Amino acid sequence: MKKNDTNSKAIALHKKLRGKITISSTMSVTSRAELSLVYTPGVAAVSSLLHKNAKLAREYTIKGKTVAVISDGSAVLGLGNIGPYGALPVMEGKCALFKTFANVEAFPLVLDTQDPEKIIEAVMAVAPVFGGINLEDIAAPKCFYIEEELKKRLDIPVMHDDQHGTAIAVLAALINAAKVVNKDLKKLKVVISGAGAAGTAVAKLLLVAGIKDIVILDSKGVIDKNRPEAHKKALAAKTNPRKVAGGLQDALKGADVLLGVSGPGLATAADIKLMAKKAIVLAMANPTPEILPEEALRGGAAVVGTGRSDYPNQINNSLVFPGVFRGALDNGVRKITDEMKVRAAHNLAALVKKPTAQKIVPGPFEPGVAKAVARAIR
Amino acid sequence: MKKNDTNSKAIALHKKLRGKITISSTMSVTSRAELSLVYTPGVAAVSSLLHKNAKLAREYTIKGKTVAVISDGSAVLGLGNIGPYGALPVMEGKCALFKTFANVEAFPLVLDTQDPEKIIEAVMAVAPVFGGINLEDIAAPKCFYIEEELKKRLDIPVMHDDQHGTAIAVLAALINAAKVVNKDLKKLKVVISGAGAAGTAVAKLLLVAGIKDIVILDSKGVIDKNRPEAHKKALAAKTNPRKVAGGLQDALKGADVLLGVSGPGLATAADIKLMAKKAIVLAMANPTPEILPEEALRGGAAVVGTGRSDYPNQINNSLVFPGVFRGALDNGVRKITDEMKVRAAHNLAALVKKPTAQKIVPGPFEPGVAKAVARAIR
Repeated sequence: MKKNDTNSKAIALHKKLRGKITISSTMSVTSRAELSLVYTPGVAAVSSLLHKNAKLAREYTIKGKTVAVISDGSAVLGLGNIGPYGALPVMEGKCALFKTFANVEAFPLVLDTQDPEKIIEAVMAVAPVFGGINLEDIAAPKCFYIEEELKKRLDIPVMHDDQHGTAIAVLAALINAAKVVNKDLKKLKVVISGAGAAGTAVAKLLLVAGIKDIVILDSKGVIDKNRPEAHKKALAAKTNPRKVAGGLQDALKGADVLLGVSGPGLATAADIKLMAKKAIVLAMANPTPEILPEEALRGGAAVVGTGRSDYPNQINNSLVFPGVFRGALDNGVRKITDEMKVRAAHNLAALVKKPTAQKIVPGPFEPGVAKAVARAIR
Repeated sequence: MKKNDTNSKAIALHKKLRGKITISSTMSVTSRAELSLVYTPGVAAVSSLLHKNAKLAREYTIKGKTVAVISDGSAVLGLGNIGPYGALPVMEGKCALFKTFANVEAFPLVLDTQDPEKIIEAVMAVAPVFGGINLEDIAAPKCFYIEEELKKRLDIPVMHDDQHGTAIAVLAALINAAKVVNKDLKKLKVVISGAGAAGTAVAKLLLVAGIKDIVILDSKGVIDKNRPEAHKKALAAKTNPRKVAGGLQDALKGADVLLGVSGPGLATAADIKLMAKKAIVLAMANPTPEILPEEALRGGAAVVGTGRSDYPNQINNSLVFPGVFRGALDNGVRKITDEMKVRAAHNLAALVKKPTAQKIVPGPFEPGVAKAVARAIR
């Protein structure tokens, strides 16, 4: 579908739907007897019970099945800081996918504040209703602080999907891509373009998975310990063992993998030619990737993935987030650990029985995707 | 149904339902083409549109159909301060009734704070998602401040239902009760027991409706301008034109109406005998009214109503709140004014074509209740 077609169809569809989710009652209330159970006076017995034992809320209320999808609209898709109203359609879409892919009930909350402390306070305030918190489209670096604080303070799982959903999907793709090119996952030389939310989380998870040779670039080139941003300093200290310096072309020399989590127009076929043989290129900027697949293939790449649905190997968070929260809810998980994330990536990769250059990840509609991920979150 | 029966049935039902509301997707997402409209890349066009014109959120997202039911759990039913988890089943029940009675989609938010400023901040933060805010079971006097501030600061309707839902229902009942006893509504001598959220709002709305002779009591007797609480001082200044002083019995002498919005064990048949002939008693404490109907009738009351479903004349907020927000959403109402509330009470009363002592308000399941109320909110 052409871009303008998609845009006008999407606008028409949203106008028709008037909201991509709907709330209904789980029982009909058609008599005074039913009313007296669902509402006063009967509900008072349930209220008293939960007042005495708040943990039972998971069994007697929506808390046990419901996740909040929360954004301040500060970094929405490729659109940037478009605020809460701009963010709302994306969050609703995410809620629709939660239900579709994993039967997780999710409600969107877009916040009328972009102050980190106020975001934290708002999430803390509404947390009693929810069994999990999916943070979404919050700009770096504040997203790191907000997530860390909420993880510390709340007894329900909190995940910033732009970070960890992306990282899990990328690791899964890389596990299978390494098989396709017959290289050892842990020995891959990886270049990551982008040191924001996604790039940071991808780098951290690859380290946990045992990949040691990682070079990260931001818009100014390879990051080092002199970067002003705390998260980049910390990343630089843990990566780049060969002390590569300079720009993208310096980093790509002899590299096995280019991971794009930055934006369009990053690399050309000539850049890809600098890489090692049988190079892997995962260019995830959406909708326009860092390098188009045909261009990467012309540069000699052996495996190419993007975030797009119109090319092979769509590496998308929708493979991940529904299953993560399905597992967390089912298994009463309070923290989503690095070990769970690595396991989720392996489970996801294992769904592709015989990976090929055209097929390193399952499609979002293949059966068992959410279940495979959910099994890892325990 | 006996109380213990109701309690155990309510607990079993809640355990079975695991939440009285459910969220689903408004369209099936079964192909990449659909995915690209509901989510990226198509959704970006809708996001850009709403970023430029936030008002369109009412047409393109759930904002146009969704209300938040918000409580801090500080004054839940007759149970008092039982916190957010205790409050959640009540708020869910309210959401189920919103849908059942008026097709309003409502989502419960119970807050992990009881600080008025933090409650205001939390509501402000999540407001972009909602087309209206139903405050619920928040203790007096902070409920007055919270509601007033939110009304000032938000561009969507905000209503504390314990106040205004109750007031509208009581006024509707009184309009018809006055007809039954053939007295002039505006000339009724009214005694209100309770100067909390409900009592205050009832008194104010009766004043707007033209009733002038109102005497209000709290637990210490008839309130006067020396009460320490600001809202009671203000109420005292606007009511009690005959300067009645003392306790309930002093107030009841010659009164036409006793409105109970306080708690059980207030009055006896002997007290009712102090009232004028053809007295009206609306004893709304739930589940145990201020005086049981049989006792009030023994004292000579001509019309008796309660909040209970097992006596005639159930005067309940569920007659009111669904229609108020239905009307507000349909008609783009930003503030629910006193005039709208009085009109809603008249519309509600008018549904009972021939009021009798046994029938001064419609039942909650009678058709047209929500619509009649909604017509007033424009």
